[in-house]
Amino acid sequence: MEKKKAGIIGATGYAGAELLRLLLTHPDVEVAAISSVSYEGQEMAEVYRNFLGRLNMVLTDQDDVIAKSDVIFASLPHGLCEEIGAKCVEQGKILIDLGADFRLSKAEDYEKWYGLSYRRPELHEKAAYCIPELHRRRLTSSISIIGNPGCYPTSIALGLAPAAQAGKIVGNSVIIDSKSGVTGAGRGLTLGSHYPECNEAFSAYKVAAHRHTPEIEQTLSELLGEPAAVTFVPHLLPVNRGIISTIYATLTEEISAEAMHALYTDFYQDEPFVRVLPLGVSADIKNVKYSNYCDLSIFIDPRTHRLIVVSAIDNMVKGAAGQAIQNMNIRCGFAEDAGIRFIPPAF
Amino acid sequence: MEKKKAGIIGATGYAGAELLRLLLTHPDVEVAAISSVSYEGQEMAEVYRNFLGRLNMVLTDQDDVIAKSDVIFASLPHGLCEEIGAKCVEQGKILIDLGADFRLSKAEDYEKWYGLSYRRPELHEKAAYCIPELHRRRLTSSISIIGNPGCYPTSIALGLAPAAQAGKIVGNSVIIDSKSGVTGAGRGLTLGSHYPECNEAFSAYKVAAHRHTPEIEQTLSELLGEPAAVTFVPHLLPVNRGIISTIYATLTEEISAEAMHALYTDFYQDEPFVRVLPLGVSADIKNVKYSNYCDLSIFIDPRTHRLIVVSAIDNMVKGAAGQAIQNMNIRCGFAEDAGIRFIPPAF
Amino acid sequence: MEKKKAGIIGATGYAGAELLRLLLTHPDVEVAAISSVSYEGQEMAEVYRNFLGRLNMVLTDQDDVIAKSDVIFASLPHGLCEEIGAKCVEQGKILIDLGADFRLSKAEDYEKWYGLSYRRPELHEKAAYCIPELHRRRLTSSISIIGNPGCYPTSIALGLAPAAQAGKIVGNSVIIDSKSGVTGAGRGLTLGSHYPECNEAFSAYKVAAHRHTPEIEQTLSELLGEPAAVTFVPHLLPVNRGIISTIYATLTEEISAEAMHALYTDFYQDEPFVRVLPLGVSADIKNVKYSNYCDLSIFIDPRTHRLIVVSAIDNMVKGAAGQAIQNMNIRCGFAEDAGIRFIPPAF
Amino acid sequence: MEKKKAGIIGATGYAGAELLRLLLTHPDVEVAAISSVSYEGQEMAEVYRNFLGRLNMVLTDQDDVIAKSDVIFASLPHGLCEEIGAKCVEQGKILIDLGADFRLSKAEDYEKWYGLSYRRPELHEKAAYCIPELHRRRLTSSISIIGNPGCYPTSIALGLAPAAQAGKIVGNSVIIDSKSGVTGAGRGLTLGSHYPECNEAFSAYKVAAHRHTPEIEQTLSELLGEPAAVTFVPHLLPVNRGIISTIYATLTEEISAEAMHALYTDFYQDEPFVRVLPLGVSADIKNVKYSNYCDLSIFIDPRTHRLIVVSAIDNMVKGAAGQAIQNMNIRCGFAEDAGIRFIPPAF
Repeated sequence: MEKKKAGIIGATGYAGAELLRLLLTHPDVEVAAISSVSYEGQEMAEVYRNFLGRLNMVLTDQDDVIAKSDVIFASLPHGLCEEIGAKCVEQGKILIDLGADFRLSKAEDYEKWYGLSYRRPELHEKAAYCIPELHRRRLTSSISIIGNPGCYPTSIALGLAPAAQAGKIVGNSVIIDSKSGVTGAGRGLTLGSHYPECNEAFSAYKVAAHRHTPEIEQTLSELLGEPAAVTFVPHLLPVNRGIISTIYATLTEEISAEAMHALYTDFYQDEPFVRVLPLGVSADIKNVKYSNYCDLSIFIDPRTHRLIVVSAIDNMVKGAAGQAIQNMNIRCGFAEDAGIRFIPPAF
Repeated sequence: MEKKKAGIIGATGYAGAELLRLLLTHPDVEVAAISSVSYEGQEMAEVYRNFLGRLNMVLTDQDDVIAKSDVIFASLPHGLCEEIGAKCVEQGKILIDLGADFRLSKAEDYEKWYGLSYRRPELHEKAAYCIPELHRRRLTSSISIIGNPGCYPTSIALGLAPAAQAGKIVGNSVIIDSKSGVTGAGRGLTLGSHYPECNEAFSAYKVAAHRHTPEIEQTLSELLGEPAAVTFVPHLLPVNRGIISTIYATLTEEISAEAMHALYTDFYQDEPFVRVLPLGVSADIKNVKYSNYCDLSIFIDPRTHRLIVVSAIDNMVKGAAGQAIQNMNIRCGFAEDAGIRFIPPAF
Repeated sequence: MEKKKAGIIGATGYAGAELLRLLLTHPDVEVAAISSVSYEGQEMAEVYRNFLGRLNMVLTDQDDVIAKSDVIFASLPHGLCEEIGAKCVEQGKILIDLGADFRLSKAEDYEKWYGLSYRRPELHEKAAYCIPELHRRRLTSSISIIGNPGCYPTSIALGLAPAAQAGKIVGNSVIIDSKSGVTGAGRGLTLGSHYPECNEAFSAYKVAAHRHTPEIEQTLSELLGEPAAVTFVPHLLPVNRGIISTIYATLTEEISAEAMHALYTDFYQDEPFVRVLPLGVSADIKNVKYSNYCDLSIFIDPRTHRLIVVSAIDNMVKGAAGQAIQNMNIRCGFAEDAGIRFIPPAF
Repeated sequence: MEKKKAGIIGATGYAGAELLRLLLTHPDVEVAAISSVSYEGQEMAEVYRNFLGRLNMVLTDQDDVIAKSDVIFASLPHGLCEEIGAKCVEQGKILIDLGADFRLSKAEDYEKWYGLSYRRPELHEKAAYCIPELHRRRLTSSISIIGNPGCYPTSIALGLAPAAQAGKIVGNSVIIDSKSGVTGAGRGLTLGSHYPECNEAFSAYKVAAHRHTPEIEQTLSELLGEPAAVTFVPHLLPVNRGIISTIYATLTEEISAEAMHALYTDFYQDEPFVRVLPLGVSADIKNVKYSNYCDLSIFIDPRTHRLIVVSAIDNMVKGAAGQAIQNMNIRCGFAEDAGIRFIPPAF
């Protein structure tokens, strides 16, 4: 197959830089252009010295990226991608938006949580939100825009899907306590990610108020077949990469850990990127780092009749760049695991 | 007042070493003896070089400590303190047990969770479990043994007490997601606390099966006035010190964040070691490190009718050595904050 | 003795905040005022939440601090303290400058390395640079301004003094490889101290070009009695606090490790804050953290005829705030260790 | 080309596990067998859960590995590989020893630093020590055993080679201050690598007494054409991976930074795995992590007439497993960068 040309808008943010790293070794893709508002005109390998000797590419602007690429990845703050999406559709290109502009199916959710309205509703009909393990069929040839899932919602949806779809949990009982590495906060300088402020520190943030909440609820409600509201509390974890979501839900009926484990194992048996761990073992960030895996561990608390799922991903891979490539692979007809079959390092 | 003589059995574990550090600058106490099974006969300052130049004391054995001290602190694995307690009572000494042997009022809880039975039930009548902010009146002159609370239960009880006692939360709805620094796992070598295995890592452990569970439920049930079962999941956090417990509970009635905050502020208004943070600010391990403070932040999730409390302590101070000294201060009639008025460093 | 009134100009930088923490528990001092350009008018306990419940003080401006205080500590970028010093002298106050404006005795060094000239040379006659263990006699009553040493130079001067003064090392052979925790870079936001950029990272910076170089050479030359040039390379270490300086120097004559160790032990025998470690043990940041100690370990490489000293301090205490208080104590006639007798925690 | 069969003796140590990870995706190799004394009979994916879903292989013993493999990698404590080497030679296999048994050309060095003698001197004639960039021509078809270089010596030899070979530095002036991540200490449990003991800590170890010293001197002496003794001081760095060696040497003549930089750039112009950084930029562990690169930065201190080189590698890749594969590639006629062309992640 001829290689597709891929481009990245917002290549100097953390997700953009990770995308670039992964795309550079993808067998079916050639990186055609990369852009950055802050570093336009500079060599990427000067901004990120890890690329030295591997990349001889100058950062340009978004129009250049769209013009030169078949598939455009955008990793930008919310509110900027409808316009880019329109250009891509016009030029017959595919846009994969790593931001929030094409994730929420209800415009009112976007307005409520992001404070913006959809200005081009017609675009959203050509768009699909896709966690591959749950929604890969959505990526038909009529789809021009892919709303790539958020990091937290990915870890949570994969952790809840088997139980929720099988009707084993009470929708409104779901509580999610998530912990994310600091790259999740981006490369922008803030006191909260200043080393001496977050090293040897740990706290919650945006308690029950994080913008990923409606995305989590959207997927959970679809799985349950009824609306569900969740309590979602993210925490900032002093590591570079990784998310653990510890998910609590009340069981609708008694079920043994073994039976629940079997349900999860069956659900994900053909999935290359979800690993249901043996009973009794907890998922750990360290075992998924630098990989596209989601590790799930399943516990039942028989004393309180709750399911507890511990879900681990690399926020920058399965939670962002890796999943975006997985979505590209599906949409473009590449092997679903092309370019993202990394074995996580042991340390 | 004449200085009391204090001794430490198990001085070379992390809690024991921290106790020693704090006792050495306590105005009302003189350290009389310290013991260690593993390092008996060695200089403490050779085992812990931070003490160099400050301590010229050789580690002895537990009988020596009991003989030389008025107040004995024991920081040992469970199952060893009934015998020590008996000796202390016999010799008219006070024992403060930092382990689990005098925490649970029901012998069956101890048997179920620790696999051991109380062999000297009469001792437990002279013993009291005491989180000072909730139970300081228990420490009357008839008490010879103090069951010093566990680290997780301390952070959780202080986080739940005002709401639970006021009947604002549904007992069986309580879910606690805790994260502890690695000193909580002790100084004993294990793969789980080997640096390359827990640095840049994060996972849950003893999911819904941690031995602190009955202690948490004991206090919560007392506060509620009825039995309550909780789901408790601890996680290992890659920092040296500190615990964050994120506590979720369903409200019994609608209540605003402001009203709940006022309830907490009132409850703790005279407490020197509990700080209820302003609304909207999350408790952070970094602001309590090396201090005896418990920081509490209060959130209401109106969408799901839940109270969320984020509770932060230093697991080695308020969660162990500091609280043990606070208990000694109360029992011995010293100022309650004597020797533990440390201002947490900013970093 | 009546308490002195102390004030801090630049209280919201890291060194300023650490000073405040230490001064708040100093037995001979009362904190009278604190200032900050960036946070003027705000509560300190809102800027640094570790102070919550311990401080009810609003940040003002430098004139307010000077007016209200007997001793003024200034922790500011270089170039700002001559003016403050002039005001202090005028008002009969003592200034302790934690910056670089009163450290270098030669104006040409200041010009060469800092790009500024001394505008008030007369002030420098009332000023003294003072590492207490080497220069405490300088702090006579005629001294109104104390140039508090830099963090790296403190660790290095204490590491070199006994050997240099005894003529055991070749001056121009000295090479110093230093490693500093990230608080040394201050609270200002930079990419270099953004958590994901410096966690799991390590590099040198300002190689053979750091502004502490002339200060290091000034002290070494005084000790040797002849001019000496050193190679000094600092590195950024992914920890919050602490400096290790590994110092290499060619021996002027054969000397055993035991003899060199004895020389160091004798030199520092009456010093409360310098600990010469037993032969064979390396100084470690962890054993001096949060304390005013300097730990020194002495090695001889007989194969290459070199002395190797590993010197460890807490950059924020002995390297800044603690030493500033030590200098105040000397100048004001307090016990030299008043308020800074902290035992370093074991972890 | 048909795939070679590769095996690993000592697969559950850190270097062994890293080797396995890299070999599993090597295009020219198939992993045939892996062994471990401690975990014989267990599934590798149970010992290292990062391999879950990617490897279905049970750990066997060394004879099994030798029998099934064409190329055998051994990652063992010193003293065990002569016997393995003899078996490999006998069976016509190639051994790549990641340990120290085939690194030193002089038996007396091995005896002096390792306390053991070479029992099979004839084997050493079929063996070659090989840092590919310096010695790749040694790996002729007559070589059956490759002594894979140590981690520190690799970083140091690459940092010194251009200047030493060109006669620009004084041999006996060389001082090396190295800092290594904790994986360098291995997976064996020790207090020194217990998380609370090495997190937020930093110290030197084996000062001027590390066993890599003779290996460093062997290569330096070859490059200089005369014997040279170095001072080498390693430090333990609180990161998982990476080594920075800061290397100091007196210049034999005046030379500008630009000229020295050109010398290095020329020397390594055709090397795929050495990157000479632009002048003024310091090598950083973060930019080589998880890759086979060695990054070098070149500084001249004109004030003291010294060359300063900062050399960065990933201790587990270029310092162990990656370089072992690079050596295999050369010896077996694969592309030298086959299986090890990883782009280092930015974070």
